Amino acid sequence: MIKAEIITIGDEILYGQITDTNTQWISAALDKIGIKTFRKSSVGDQAQVILDILAEASQRVDIVLITGGLGPTKDDITKKTLCDFFGIQLITHAQALADLHAFFRKRGREVTGLNFGQAELPSNALYLPNKLGTAPGMWFEVNGVIYVSMPGVPYEMKGLMQDEVLPRLQSHFSTAVYFHQIVRTVGIGESILAEKIVDWEEALPPHLKLAYLPSMGSVKLRLTGVGQSLSAIEAEVKAAIDLVLPQISDYVYALEDIELDKAIGNMLQARKQTIAVAESCTGGYLAHQFTKNPGSSAYFYGGVVAYDNSVKIQVLGVKPETLATFGAVSEQTVSEMALNVRQLLGTTYGLATSGIAGPDGGTPEKPVGTIWIALATPTEVFTQKLQLGGFREQNIHLTSINILNLLRKKMA
Amino acid sequence: MIKAEIITIGDEILYGQITDTNTQWISAALDKIGIKTFRKSSVGDQAQVILDILAEASQRVDIVLITGGLGPTKDDITKKTLCDFFGIQLITHAQALADLHAFFRKRGREVTGLNFGQAELPSNALYLPNKLGTAPGMWFEVNGVIYVSMPGVPYEMKGLMQDEVLPRLQSHFSTAVYFHQIVRTVGIGESILAEKIVDWEEALPPHLKLAYLPSMGSVKLRLTGVGQSLSAIEAEVKAAIDLVLPQISDYVYALEDIELDKAIGNMLQARKQTIAVAESCTGGYLAHQFTKNPGSSAYFYGGVVAYDNSVKIQVLGVKPETLATFGAVSEQTVSEMALNVRQLLGTTYGLATSGIAGPDGGTPEKPVGTIWIALATPTEVFTQKLQLGGFREQNIHLTSINILNLLRKKMA
Repeated sequence: MIKAEIITIGDEILYGQITDTNTQWISAALDKIGIKTFRKSSVGDQAQVILDILAEASQRVDIVLITGGLGPTKDDITKKTLCDFFGIQLITHAQALADLHAFFRKRGREVTGLNFGQAELPSNALYLPNKLGTAPGMWFEVNGVIYVSMPGVPYEMKGLMQDEVLPRLQSHFSTAVYFHQIVRTVGIGESILAEKIVDWEEALPPHLKLAYLPSMGSVKLRLTGVGQSLSAIEAEVKAAIDLVLPQISDYVYALEDIELDKAIGNMLQARKQTIAVAESCTGGYLAHQFTKNPGSSAYFYGGVVAYDNSVKIQVLGVKPETLATFGAVSEQTVSEMALNVRQLLGTTYGLATSGIAGPDGGTPEKPVGTIWIALATPTEVFTQKLQLGGFREQNIHLTSINILNLLRKKMA
Repeated sequence: MIKAEIITIGDEILYGQITDTNTQWISAALDKIGIKTFRKSSVGDQAQVILDILAEASQRVDIVLITGGLGPTKDDITKKTLCDFFGIQLITHAQALADLHAFFRKRGREVTGLNFGQAELPSNALYLPNKLGTAPGMWFEVNGVIYVSMPGVPYEMKGLMQDEVLPRLQSHFSTAVYFHQIVRTVGIGESILAEKIVDWEEALPPHLKLAYLPSMGSVKLRLTGVGQSLSAIEAEVKAAIDLVLPQISDYVYALEDIELDKAIGNMLQARKQTIAVAESCTGGYLAHQFTKNPGSSAYFYGGVVAYDNSVKIQVLGVKPETLATFGAVSEQTVSEMALNVRQLLGTTYGLATSGIAGPDGGTPEKPVGTIWIALATPTEVFTQKLQLGGFREQNIHLTSINILNLLRKKMA
């Protein structure tokens, strides 16, 4: 197995001031060409700490991918530190200098001052041109280990990975191949899901490995196969998945890595159906789950955020006596909301939510987390009562997942 | 200096299948109590790799914070591996078991099968109750090093950090005292803000440090003072803040760490004013920015997500000729939307958005990122055109920030 380690350099990541999105992207890209990320590390802009981690990494992996610390200012010390690590010097690289001049000229500027340093590379580096910025990528092969240094700016790093690094890694290593199959589920917890498929999982051969990836309200399964032939391992993974699917079919909503809202959007679009939402406790969040997806205007017509009871009555046409008799958080109110929003907007389906999101507002009969959801179809209204917890953000999210799951099941 | 290392455990992070947001959050939280993150590492669900990194970390830092690998399934091996590392056994912890039963009972379920394992802890662990999930936190003190193990689910980790870990770290290490003052700004970029206050910043004494914490559409300033007396350092920090505020008053919306939506909610509530939204391109996101805040029903009445033009006409009463003449993405349409939603819901203010969120749907005259926003007050309508970029999620978020900022300025 070819092992890689990803090292990000920079105080701003270490102290939590910026989000590191590079390492996730890099490890996913490596994974696709069968290279395992063995470790990810972040260290600060201090020479000794960088030297230490380079020395450690050189002992445990085949590939060391480094991002960051390549800017022109004096707190960027990656190149200088690589020189110390390899025991060599910085020299001006003719092609890097020519490319630097061209980069500046194209933008109507001249190379000045500190920027000349961008054309200096450790003398043992293979120069990897960076089309999107001034900090070159560098490739080193020392004692059988490959080191790659790239800038930390995400789009520059991605450009270098795609144009230079990934093709070189693929041609340098002839690796085993990996195939991943995702199974996305909803409406079942991780432990109950695991119990349902324990026999299947235990019968898997050692080169097929199952991972549970839970998020709030949903569990993702990933079956990974490793072998020499992609077509053979793909067939084996898919055959194993075919065996387990009938055991969990009620919960599976996609065999690709998409969210439930996107899966439902795809179903609606394929059937040329449309949807509208009437939201009380979810307060716009449910609409956003649809509209965050590009192209959602094809099936999502809109909705009413009926937070105040006056909006439920005046915009949605909920009967005042329904609210007076049963309250806003009731099967009757949420049914009228779903029916009326469907009619008002002229859609195939209407969804409605009403509940006590918390943290305050609960009563002994209707504690925080008491939520009613409803789905109006062309022929029927389905309702469901949820009893969630005491946390507002979680209640809003889980209500959204639950109502999307109700719709999914009724569309099935 | 107290040094910490953060270790995330899990193949799903290592393979790049999920985004790690935990380490950034943890290092920022540690930074606030004067503990420096010295290294961040991610390793997979393999016992030997976890043992290796624990041994390394124990040599170089004072605090080892571990997240992940605490689920009930067999690919979660953190607890077992901690036992091997410390040379001890897993035992059922009476309080953890009682809490586990209570957690399930509250949700109308019983503890079954694999879940019983959640109450087993390494025998040397101090049990840290997790109110938000079934995987307990654990605290170990071995040979002068503190180890903390927490679940990887972000909200569970955050709950444990806030309730248990941060207070214990503060009382365990008697460090110098820190006082932080936050200044939240909106409507100005980091570099222009920095230029405005450069003289002030350079005149700060060495024990007062300024940090710029930019997020999309907003820059947070944090001035940190370190000293021996909390009252003295607090007075010094506040005096420095009083000096800088007049230079940036147009952009400051809060002197506490709250989002712009919350700050506006506070203003509305204090003035007993109310608000309604009519959303096209933001598609429910703007409503959610209000309703995610507890107590927002006091001032947020609701809104209309008018995604399809039919909803703009039939629910919001936008004139068909306005749409036909100027298009949905126009000053005229967005003005009618704001005016009408204010009238329809009977609120003090009406907000409206309409634009091309992307990635598709642009034209040469109205490219992706062209967005109109409007605010209707009791006496006037204010409009603004935004020219944002090509990224949907970013456009939705920045539109929301911009319209909230328009409201803030007109309320001032």
